[in-house]
Amino acid sequence: MADILVVGSLAYDTISTPEGRAERSLGGSANYFSLAASMYAPVRIVGVVGEDYEQKNIEMLTSRGVDVSGMERAPGRTFHWEGEYDKDMNNAITLATHLNVFEHFDPKLPSNYKNSEYVFLANIDPELQLKVLSQVEKPKFVAMDTMNFWIESKIYALQEVLKKVDALLINEGEAKLLTRKANAIAAAQEIVRMGPKAVVIKRGEYGFLLYAEEQFFVLPAFPISRVVDPTGAGDTFAGGFFGFLAKNNLSHSLADLKRACVEGCLLASFTVQDFGTKSVADLTLEKLNQRHGHYLEVISYPTAF
Amino acid sequence: MADILVVGSLAYDTISTPEGRAERSLGGSANYFSLAASMYAPVRIVGVVGEDYEQKNIEMLTSRGVDVSGMERAPGRTFHWEGEYDKDMNNAITLATHLNVFEHFDPKLPSNYKNSEYVFLANIDPELQLKVLSQVEKPKFVAMDTMNFWIESKIYALQEVLKKVDALLINEGEAKLLTRKANAIAAAQEIVRMGPKAVVIKRGEYGFLLYAEEQFFVLPAFPISRVVDPTGAGDTFAGGFFGFLAKNNLSHSLADLKRACVEGCLLASFTVQDFGTKSVADLTLEKLNQRHGHYLEVISYPTAF
Repeated sequence: MADILVVGSLAYDTISTPEGRAERSLGGSANYFSLAASMYAPVRIVGVVGEDYEQKNIEMLTSRGVDVSGMERAPGRTFHWEGEYDKDMNNAITLATHLNVFEHFDPKLPSNYKNSEYVFLANIDPELQLKVLSQVEKPKFVAMDTMNFWIESKIYALQEVLKKVDALLINEGEAKLLTRKANAIAAAQEIVRMGPKAVVIKRGEYGFLLYAEEQFFVLPAFPISRVVDPTGAGDTFAGGFFGFLAKNNLSHSLADLKRACVEGCLLASFTVQDFGTKSVADLTLEKLNQRHGHYLEVISYPTAF
Repeated sequence: MADILVVGSLAYDTISTPEGRAERSLGGSANYFSLAASMYAPVRIVGVVGEDYEQKNIEMLTSRGVDVSGMERAPGRTFHWEGEYDKDMNNAITLATHLNVFEHFDPKLPSNYKNSEYVFLANIDPELQLKVLSQVEKPKFVAMDTMNFWIESKIYALQEVLKKVDALLINEGEAKLLTRKANAIAAAQEIVRMGPKAVVIKRGEYGFLLYAEEQFFVLPAFPISRVVDPTGAGDTFAGGFFGFLAKNNLSHSLADLKRACVEGCLLASFTVQDFGTKSVADLTLEKLNQRHGHYLEVISYPTAF
């Protein structure tokens, strides 16, 4: 068991989906990630919140053993995202982004964070990702996420981070945008030429693909007939993925990464069943193990005839 | 081993994709299906061609043991479809549809076809699907395909066919259109309420899902980094699916259908690697077995840690 460091957003989201609406629901990549990863291993969080951030939201993390000493409280309001989803839930439409305290975020690691072995650079400005990474002494495994905004506005900084990480976890559309490839398979092959030894492409309701050691590992998402809110599924995936690696002191062999991806995929399947962080906050290892058994039935077939 | 009957289109297609262009390439659902299914079991084909249909295209089928006595040659030209694909190859844009001899097609089964045990009603007018089915004496397993055009223009006839078949094989977009569900999982559950005991939803580059006996079976497509032409992948899938069932005299138990889906999925992965029917016509059991081995690596992970 080793410690996981995450840097990312802490937010309140207002979300409309065909299944309903949630106002100022707890969100942000670092929250989804930490709730998921803390099921497996200790998590250290780096981020910024505003004066309006509720104490109970911090306590939810500390009650799960998350170290919040790197969570800065700044004057002003917490980052707020407002978005809605189209009918098939595959596309989020951003209605408003209020960066608020996030605009001047300058991440500084508390000294006890510097020996972290597992580091996740969630989707933030690649310059901040570099700043965080430079403060970690000797990480064993580093992965990052990113999005279209940084691909379009800070490609050079992004390319720098890509050279320093072991793995990139990225949405399918953004993988294609980053590589200018039309197909996820070709995009994954291109991404390893940019630096990371491994790439995980998150495909929403279609699952994920992992490319490492020149091999592909592809599996579908757990079938969910009623998706309520897909927000945070990718960050939950990353949390399960990292939690599994850190719990078992694993590194980046293909076999280890495969199992970590399945864990992430299963955790993400809970996130989409309710608004915001609710499902993953309520998740138990028992429910997760049960779903893993069910998942094996969904993807297994008799190979001999 | 049992006989398979297929009714569908025999066509020449003109196809543009980001990888190139093919003029008057051999196509049509019955051709893709028959080339795939004849790798496993004898196929009987019902369809219509025009005066321009080349003898070598018929001989390619007969050389594989396909019975073409139900292939009618009518005055006029063969059905011709012209289409192009957008960058990610997920959507075909129809540029022209010349029904030609297909417009007045009235399928009649030769008497030796009537004892067929496995029947595939490819994507044609549901009234013609009913007409063919009524001429088969005692089918053991019947499946159908359909498309948006029939869902929108002949829903009542389509609902009649759905009540008479064991399985529906359908594209994801059309499954959603048929059921008015936003999600493939919910769509599959709705389709079994319409009649079929089983439904296979074809998801292109994302693979397929099977729903039968109240259980889901979901797997990804074999990873292909360079898709040349996705035309006919769904019909090839159906051919591999039926071929596997007929070769092994299987029916519609979940285990049987699972294995049939994998076979269809693997065959379809060859079709997309070249224009038209070329790849599936050149396919050997050896190449297919090799890909199956490779596929198992792509979808397998160590479950114990």
